[in-house]
Amino acid sequence: MHTLQIELGARSYPIVIGHDLLTADNLLPNVTHQIMVVTNQTIAPLYLDKALAALSTRSVQHVILPDGEQHKSTQTLDLIYEALLTHRFDRGCTVLALGGGVIGDMAGFAAASYQRGVNFVQVPTTLLAQVDSSVGGKTAVNHPLGKNMIGAFHQPKAVFADMNVLQSLSDREFKAGLAEVIKYGFILDAEFFAWLEDNIEPLLARDSDAIAWAVRRSCEVKAAIVAADELEHGQRALLNFGHTFGHAIEAGMGYGVWLHGEAISAGMVMALDMSERTGRIGNNTVQRGVHLLERAGLPIAPPSSMTPEQMLSYMARDKKVSAGQLKLILARAIGETEVTTEFTEQELNATLGKFLG
Amino acid sequence: MHTLQIELGARSYPIVIGHDLLTADNLLPNVTHQIMVVTNQTIAPLYLDKALAALSTRSVQHVILPDGEQHKSTQTLDLIYEALLTHRFDRGCTVLALGGGVIGDMAGFAAASYQRGVNFVQVPTTLLAQVDSSVGGKTAVNHPLGKNMIGAFHQPKAVFADMNVLQSLSDREFKAGLAEVIKYGFILDAEFFAWLEDNIEPLLARDSDAIAWAVRRSCEVKAAIVAADELEHGQRALLNFGHTFGHAIEAGMGYGVWLHGEAISAGMVMALDMSERTGRIGNNTVQRGVHLLERAGLPIAPPSSMTPEQMLSYMARDKKVSAGQLKLILARAIGETEVTTEFTEQELNATLGKFLG
Repeated sequence: MHTLQIELGARSYPIVIGHDLLTADNLLPNVTHQIMVVTNQTIAPLYLDKALAALSTRSVQHVILPDGEQHKSTQTLDLIYEALLTHRFDRGCTVLALGGGVIGDMAGFAAASYQRGVNFVQVPTTLLAQVDSSVGGKTAVNHPLGKNMIGAFHQPKAVFADMNVLQSLSDREFKAGLAEVIKYGFILDAEFFAWLEDNIEPLLARDSDAIAWAVRRSCEVKAAIVAADELEHGQRALLNFGHTFGHAIEAGMGYGVWLHGEAISAGMVMALDMSERTGRIGNNTVQRGVHLLERAGLPIAPPSSMTPEQMLSYMARDKKVSAGQLKLILARAIGETEVTTEFTEQELNATLGKFLG
Repeated sequence: MHTLQIELGARSYPIVIGHDLLTADNLLPNVTHQIMVVTNQTIAPLYLDKALAALSTRSVQHVILPDGEQHKSTQTLDLIYEALLTHRFDRGCTVLALGGGVIGDMAGFAAASYQRGVNFVQVPTTLLAQVDSSVGGKTAVNHPLGKNMIGAFHQPKAVFADMNVLQSLSDREFKAGLAEVIKYGFILDAEFFAWLEDNIEPLLARDSDAIAWAVRRSCEVKAAIVAADELEHGQRALLNFGHTFGHAIEAGMGYGVWLHGEAISAGMVMALDMSERTGRIGNNTVQRGVHLLERAGLPIAPPSSMTPEQMLSYMARDKKVSAGQLKLILARAIGETEVTTEFTEQELNATLGKFLG
């Protein structure tokens, strides 16, 4: 068991990485007198009983949401509010997210906004959620007009990244999580990228020690960035490497059709192409990136059904647009990225044209 | 023109109190490149053109919401999100609330949650909003199961309390605002309470100087409390004097039937009765409070159609319930109040029985 402390002053919290963490000893010190466990239809049969048993000495209730990004909506969010209000949970209560990124984001925003903010604990059950949503305090729901458009920054009191629960993930979901792991190598840590090149097979075979290390290193990279820029005014945007293209794929295909990690994988390939096209990196660096994503079983191109115009229209709604100017995260090397507006419309159109239509 | 600075560290902001404040000189330094003016059907014909003209050198859009507490819902909130997304407003945009408390609360929560938080400026157009919502950063919408149950703390960048806009208020709304003004005297400032006893007639006659002083003193009292307790862990609860009973009246009658200030006036009378019943104050103090509220044209009893059981059921959902224990704000004198659980069920039932059914 390894504990990684996320340093955010008064909002600091631990990420516990280990095996079989859903116990009273782990959970009880981090929750309050009332606990609402928020989970979904897929996770509930697997881990809900274990979580409820660990918390059974407190007043604990649960709400089971439909599974999938298409349900990350204000309508589903209302099911959490309703459960909290029906059970008369007060502002001292705790919301515990037991699920993947969608559950974490929705339960987190419910915790941020119920009675103007209550305690929040996360038990991420996917690799993606363990390496992404567990650091940074971002919570959100989607709006029909844009992904993650409604949300808040709300730090958890503790995060439990349990290696056991990853064993039940489908291959598709596990690989989607690897996309974000690989992203951390790209954006800030060439050594970690090389480690991933050496260890992609054990990771795909779900070797627990390899996964624990990948989760730990991913969280450390993210934590370093978030600690320097909690509210995303600058460097934090690096975490969105591949995401401007990726979010457009997710929205364009309809939420839930492509998994987030799959869309981000294709998005990173497009960002690498832009990086080469703008003279930031050479083709060998592009190939190194594409090859690792391919070995991880991830898509290396966007869906052929999307047009450049569609993609541009979704990209224009991205939260990284500022004063009408689209910002991209581009690579200068493996392990070195920058937030930039230094690219031309022609270069962007060339990348879109190469991959789409 | 008087500027009162609300001291909250990095989140400090000015409240400007004066005449004819809806000008480019006042507004432009406090907004950004994109401004969404949020107002309602009642206010729009009166002041929207003036606001838009003052902001016309920037990219400005507006959204007109239906008027009334019954529309302070997640459905109406979505109209703001839709307007922001349709016009592709980015995370550097400003939401400007032009309206009463309902508009301020909803626009404020939209600003708190749109893209995880954007700039917010308030132009409160009711007396109630000027003395209440303009200090403290509380934003919220109602849920069918409870008032203000979904919200956030989100401080504005600036507040403009314009005396001119109060002249168009209906008598009923103006008096409802006086209920909160009188509350500030009750909870912390006996001298201000005495000033109100001496000046209730000029206030009711809408004397601008008298109102400006009442707004300023009210905001100063609230600011002192909020600065000491921004996130309502302790003393800030004093601001809810009369509100536990009052919120139950509003919810029980259906939002919008009783104005907030009217419900709070009756709620304060009930809180005074409890204060006397629990031996905190004498009947002469109760009478002094009731008399001033009566002179202000405010209700001094809850609606006769409510039962004690109904009221208790709504009170149990109050945000001041902690670990199943109802807290009340009770008076020890004019200008001195306390947050307390020191009262018996019998005493509470006696007060409910005296006023209801």
